[in-house]
Amino acid sequence: MITHPSLLILRPFLKPSLLNSTLFVNPRRFSLRCNSSLATESLNSDTNETGRSGSRSSPPPSGSTQKIDVNPPRGTRDFPPEEMRLRTWLFDNFREVSRIYGFEEVDFPVLESEALYIRKAGEEIRDQLYCFEDRGNRRVALRPELTPSLARLVIQKGKSLSLPVKWFAVGQCWRYERMTRGRRREHYQWNMDIIGVADIFAEAELISSIVTFFKQIGITASDVGFKISSRKVLQEVLDRYSISEALFGKVCIIIDKMGKIPIEEIKTELALAQLPGEAIEELLQVLTMKSLTELEEKLGAAGEAVSDLKQLFSLADKYGFSEWIQFDASVVRGLAYYTGIVFEGFDKEGKLRAICGGGRYDQLLSTFGGDDIPACGFGFGDAVIVELLKEKGILPELSPCVENIVCSLDRGLQGEAAAIATRLRGSGQTVDLVLENKPLKWVFKRAKRVNAARLIFVGADEWQKGMVGVKNLSTGEQYEIKVDEL
Amino acid sequence: MITHPSLLILRPFLKPSLLNSTLFVNPRRFSLRCNSSLATESLNSDTNETGRSGSRSSPPPSGSTQKIDVNPPRGTRDFPPEEMRLRTWLFDNFREVSRIYGFEEVDFPVLESEALYIRKAGEEIRDQLYCFEDRGNRRVALRPELTPSLARLVIQKGKSLSLPVKWFAVGQCWRYERMTRGRRREHYQWNMDIIGVADIFAEAELISSIVTFFKQIGITASDVGFKISSRKVLQEVLDRYSISEALFGKVCIIIDKMGKIPIEEIKTELALAQLPGEAIEELLQVLTMKSLTELEEKLGAAGEAVSDLKQLFSLADKYGFSEWIQFDASVVRGLAYYTGIVFEGFDKEGKLRAICGGGRYDQLLSTFGGDDIPACGFGFGDAVIVELLKEKGILPELSPCVENIVCSLDRGLQGEAAAIATRLRGSGQTVDLVLENKPLKWVFKRAKRVNAARLIFVGADEWQKGMVGVKNLSTGEQYEIKVDEL
Repeated sequence: MITHPSLLILRPFLKPSLLNSTLFVNPRRFSLRCNSSLATESLNSDTNETGRSGSRSSPPPSGSTQKIDVNPPRGTRDFPPEEMRLRTWLFDNFREVSRIYGFEEVDFPVLESEALYIRKAGEEIRDQLYCFEDRGNRRVALRPELTPSLARLVIQKGKSLSLPVKWFAVGQCWRYERMTRGRRREHYQWNMDIIGVADIFAEAELISSIVTFFKQIGITASDVGFKISSRKVLQEVLDRYSISEALFGKVCIIIDKMGKIPIEEIKTELALAQLPGEAIEELLQVLTMKSLTELEEKLGAAGEAVSDLKQLFSLADKYGFSEWIQFDASVVRGLAYYTGIVFEGFDKEGKLRAICGGGRYDQLLSTFGGDDIPACGFGFGDAVIVELLKEKGILPELSPCVENIVCSLDRGLQGEAAAIATRLRGSGQTVDLVLENKPLKWVFKRAKRVNAARLIFVGADEWQKGMVGVKNLSTGEQYEIKVDEL
Repeated sequence: MITHPSLLILRPFLKPSLLNSTLFVNPRRFSLRCNSSLATESLNSDTNETGRSGSRSSPPPSGSTQKIDVNPPRGTRDFPPEEMRLRTWLFDNFREVSRIYGFEEVDFPVLESEALYIRKAGEEIRDQLYCFEDRGNRRVALRPELTPSLARLVIQKGKSLSLPVKWFAVGQCWRYERMTRGRRREHYQWNMDIIGVADIFAEAELISSIVTFFKQIGITASDVGFKISSRKVLQEVLDRYSISEALFGKVCIIIDKMGKIPIEEIKTELALAQLPGEAIEELLQVLTMKSLTELEEKLGAAGEAVSDLKQLFSLADKYGFSEWIQFDASVVRGLAYYTGIVFEGFDKEGKLRAICGGGRYDQLLSTFGGDDIPACGFGFGDAVIVELLKEKGILPELSPCVENIVCSLDRGLQGEAAAIATRLRGSGQTVDLVLENKPLKWVFKRAKRVNAARLIFVGADEWQKGMVGVKNLSTGEQYEIKVDEL
């Protein structure tokens, strides 16, 4: 079935049952010779939460056409106009907030070298890598996150970059995971990163950006909050037991599973990571803390963990986002590379997964062979926020909308209607030009669907006078107007 | 090196030499055990036209850190801010034109089922499929084009769609090909499609959109033109020799290679496709025609080929884009599914590849098992147009730009500077907030780099009076202003 030799690389792994999911095209137009016993079997049996079968399709003429799976691949989405309007609205808000914070937009390849994601701390994101070998035998992966690409680009740009760098990106990320309700295999993520600022001012600026975004889309501090901690809290506890720095990332990843798997399993994993029992107990005790005062009593005021957090809370006052944040030692985040402040946005009703998350990653660049530059950033997905807006009933109603719908009343005047459309478009107006010969009733129905403000009709009588008919579709007012005056 | 079992699917194909390109992370933070003889070898030896090595990186400390390849994967691009500004400018123009033509934006997964692209006409695009098997053993591909996904979605939506559908998309597409100058493995493509209009009015509307786009970015009819023909020209010649309809797509793909490979090879390929010698000669003779009159003399006025083309040229007059188009029988386009009018945009100096191309594809839906709906569309890449703008010296100069840069003159006033930034941002103004303690000289340099309109400085003396300092960076004017009046 697959004839091009270079497509055969992976063939030995193709199980016979999988051949069913291959498309068979219409032999009327393409001379495809295929095994008809396979061709007539049903296609991919996956169900998909977003797709459905097309009702337009009639049964294929006997033996001549095979139907493809009309759903997008499992875990992915199509964006028909109504979904796309929502995505555009969301991205526009991401971009607008980034812009008012003075960030510049960047992007990276969606296909990266797998090497960029090889980290050994047992992260979920690493286990769910969408990786494969390309036709040039390179190990590549669909990016699961944007930060490693950003780090790569920062190293590549080297001294040509003027620090600090304030960059944002809105990009698609992929993870191969078991499908559960509301979890997809791709999502778009808004990232903002500050490279070159060692102080907590950077973290404050980032959290402030997200708060501005929330306010802009109608989310309040009673809807969402930020749990804030620092990886240094864990670090300072581990330091007391002289635990190797190499273990740090791994311990963080285990701790991040708290609340997701039973506490006994957490303890077992920590013990397997060779943490002494005493350290485990102290760690778990510290992680329950929800007050900075309590933390200060435990760790002392001299350490960076406490002083960083105190500074952040003090800055939050000045920025005006204090009511949005709370200290919560249990927050560690699931990425191995964080080194300082970590934070996550959550819905206060506790119904949803984390809305966004981020933190400081001062040592990521050196793990890639670059010189370290202090850095922090966050990722904000496009899925949970939409669920939250739905929950709150404040998902925006976004309609299509054109200024004019232009039609000819006479097929012979179609060219003239096109000329009218060209004139209006030339002045920047939006025009839906009716391209087919349809009754006025149909045109009115379409005008309603596309939410047109006015209907312009080109009729023979009016045209002879150099006029066209206009109907204002909100007031119902109807009049003739000279073409020159449109 | 790779520990997660599900990552091992493709391991047997990994050649030992490829292991060099794997990333080794810094053992200081991650307990990665690696074969040091591999780890110290050089990384992926590919050269990349866009990337370069980072100059910031110092040599790794002895044996502790390995440097990754800082270039994006071969054939892909990073978009640092300056590149991203150009991309955004281009996409904004694509979107603006689509909007004034009343088209709605859509998108589809970048990862599609491979089945969607299995066509047997020998298309270049099919041979360059970026395909692989995912971890669920599904054959998937990075989309090489957007039209099959659009057709899939139209079938899926079925009768819920109100025809005609006018959709546009701006999406990344992938092709795995040998790298030559200026050819990459990914590009973004602007598509506009009209589904549900059988008449040439649809083609005229599409070409008019592209002309509007060209005008909008400063390209004139002396810079570019459209070569226009119809697949029906070929069809009518083949019909004279009773050549099977199944051969049609294949013949088109062979013909599309004219000018790229020697004419003798074209003839050989056509003969191998079992076209009689006489038919081949007549075909090649017709394909040299550059005038509709000549074509009409050959094929007669009664056929659809001639009447479609005449109608399109007549409509072009009404739309006002006649000077942009010319009949050229040699244009057939390289996609198998076109059935009627085909067109391509070209630079008149003949230096570049096709700028865009499209046509009518009335039978694509039935090859996917759906009911056919008349359809046409075009694809317009992001690469050649940028080359053309460079050639013409009219690539826009796009600078970063913020309204305010805000800094504190005293580290203790950083929170106050943040409060000022928050106030300005609250009124929608863009603010680059200086997050570090830097001398004013540095701040001025940064202000220049980010193209700030004014500098606002928060100093102790002014602050005590409830004032801040302002410097208008274009006029040089400097004054104090009450915080409330900012």
